[in-house]
Amino acid sequence: MGSSKTVISIDAMGGDLGPAAVVEGMAKSADLNPDIHFIVHGDGAELEPLLAKRGITDRCEIRHTDEVVTMHEKPSHVMRHGKGTSMWSAIDAVRAGDAPVCVSCGNTGALMAVSMIRLRKVPGVNRPAIACLWPSNNPSGFNVMLDVGADIRADQDDLLQYALMGMSYARNGFGLSRPRIGLLNVGTEEHKGRAELKVAHELIEAAAGQNEFEYIGFIEGGDIPSDRVDVIVTDGFTGNVALKTAEGTANLISETLREAFKYSWLSRMAALLAYPSLQRLKKRVDPRQANGGVFLGLNGTVVKSHGAADGTSFAAAIKLASQLAQSGFGEKLAARVASLTEASQIEEPASQNQDASKDTSST
Amino acid sequence: MGSSKTVISIDAMGGDLGPAAVVEGMAKSADLNPDIHFIVHGDGAELEPLLAKRGITDRCEIRHTDEVVTMHEKPSHVMRHGKGTSMWSAIDAVRAGDAPVCVSCGNTGALMAVSMIRLRKVPGVNRPAIACLWPSNNPSGFNVMLDVGADIRADQDDLLQYALMGMSYARNGFGLSRPRIGLLNVGTEEHKGRAELKVAHELIEAAAGQNEFEYIGFIEGGDIPSDRVDVIVTDGFTGNVALKTAEGTANLISETLREAFKYSWLSRMAALLAYPSLQRLKKRVDPRQANGGVFLGLNGTVVKSHGAADGTSFAAAIKLASQLAQSGFGEKLAARVASLTEASQIEEPASQNQDASKDTSST
Repeated sequence: MGSSKTVISIDAMGGDLGPAAVVEGMAKSADLNPDIHFIVHGDGAELEPLLAKRGITDRCEIRHTDEVVTMHEKPSHVMRHGKGTSMWSAIDAVRAGDAPVCVSCGNTGALMAVSMIRLRKVPGVNRPAIACLWPSNNPSGFNVMLDVGADIRADQDDLLQYALMGMSYARNGFGLSRPRIGLLNVGTEEHKGRAELKVAHELIEAAAGQNEFEYIGFIEGGDIPSDRVDVIVTDGFTGNVALKTAEGTANLISETLREAFKYSWLSRMAALLAYPSLQRLKKRVDPRQANGGVFLGLNGTVVKSHGAADGTSFAAAIKLASQLAQSGFGEKLAARVASLTEASQIEEPASQNQDASKDTSST
Repeated sequence: MGSSKTVISIDAMGGDLGPAAVVEGMAKSADLNPDIHFIVHGDGAELEPLLAKRGITDRCEIRHTDEVVTMHEKPSHVMRHGKGTSMWSAIDAVRAGDAPVCVSCGNTGALMAVSMIRLRKVPGVNRPAIACLWPSNNPSGFNVMLDVGADIRADQDDLLQYALMGMSYARNGFGLSRPRIGLLNVGTEEHKGRAELKVAHELIEAAAGQNEFEYIGFIEGGDIPSDRVDVIVTDGFTGNVALKTAEGTANLISETLREAFKYSWLSRMAALLAYPSLQRLKKRVDPRQANGGVFLGLNGTVVKSHGAADGTSFAAAIKLASQLAQSGFGEKLAARVASLTEASQIEEPASQNQDASKDTSST
């Protein structure tokens, strides 16, 4: 198979539409990328005919599991009793080094919990984060935002780690050599916002030079889709609310648009004529094209696909996973965080030992 | 003049488009509502001809001021040196009891700061809040969300007060007899979210019966525009990010839609035919129709209009202000908060004095 083979570990069972949609997405990806191979986790008897039907049996290794994590299972329960599930098995393939990345449609809380205990955090990372792709005015069509829900808290050091992890993701996922990073706040003036944001502002600014990113400072909610920024850093509570608010707003507008076009025979005719334009709009802001929350800060990369992902959407998540796998993203991120930890270990004695601060301040 | 006269105090100088847009909005409102009279604050020499041109001189009393608060002035500076400004004068008319409500396009931070020191908080209110109208699927077309930026912090007691203030606003501004209240969180399951949200969840639930609102529990960002809820309660940091994220999303979609319709001669023709439908959409989600953040929890009502408000938009803010004035909203809100304070004062001895708890628990 040669050295360019990319193996992706697939949890085939967790999605709302069942394994058929997952296998459809795998087949689309296999068509587009001859280097991709899969380790597929789930019910063998159900998966075999699906893979055969799509003609990708020889690109797949099936690992049979009897159980499935459902959408409403509590993360704590899955952590204790999830060993026989397709989700657990898919993550364990990454743990064993059989694949660099895993893709699952399973429930986010359970997937994060199992990823945490099986893959463990990269040394130096305090809180892992979930990064999402946000439709934007940038050439790639997307910005990166993190954290969008791995953890509801984040202090100044976590926010600095998110900045570095987001930078690494933007560089390896989008080929941006010098990503622009913004810190989400309620005002762009420096005197506004929470205390930890002011400290994080200083920390990220100070880290910009050495880590070759550009820090553009505080940004507001309205800047998230703008082309002034590539990576938006925030805590998981705020990020999750912002993400779901944007989805809700887009849904409200699209429903209203549909109603507006139903209003009269003239507007129904207009809708017909406008169809190609509306399809272009839809493609541009379609969440299916931006499918894939990436768990960052673990020893191995996990891509979370939407629970309701169809074949197209799941293929987008696989594409993202294979880009990250091929770029060697996991190792690069770990190295980046390690360099930060070393830097802070050099600084720490000065701040911990107040008496010595005069002597070390000039070093 | 009679007893039905409604007097609105207007800061005519603070907006981006100057006093002409403000006076245009006043004239529109005066046309629609014969009961409205204005106290207008600003440069008399500039205002007199504008009022005369619109034919509303006899509906207005001018109070001349020499100075204006600019958009970028710091709130702390305005608090110390703002006495001669139109903003200060407009709020002082409410303080003096000459008008029950004031409308200004001035900068939000300065307007809140001056409102706080001149009007003072209603007894029992810890943090005032800014409530905004959010385009929604409800029959009124709007939901109420608070706080969207008065204060970046809110503990459980503040969130309970926001719930009661928001309820009072929805009842008096929209005529809803039994508003449905939701608490913004990252998940609808009760085990998710920050500690203060879990406590607020209990407090608001317990207050629902006595205060005649319906508490629907935790909601997520996607539910903000839904018809399941009338009032969304959150802290000012999260609320402000959500509001600006929604505005940014709507802008991205409308720009993309415009581009999609420019794509070819066919799509340009489609755009022409679709124009009435798109206008209907625009009207439905037009922020100009929902103009007016209301400051709640002060002795007197202050309506903050967008800085860039044009005549139509400013008229919407005046309409909101007059509805609130005519409903006697200010007094009702104060009474509602007072009843909450009394209730908690009855409870407090039991919790403060552990020894006496057995004796008082049955009262």
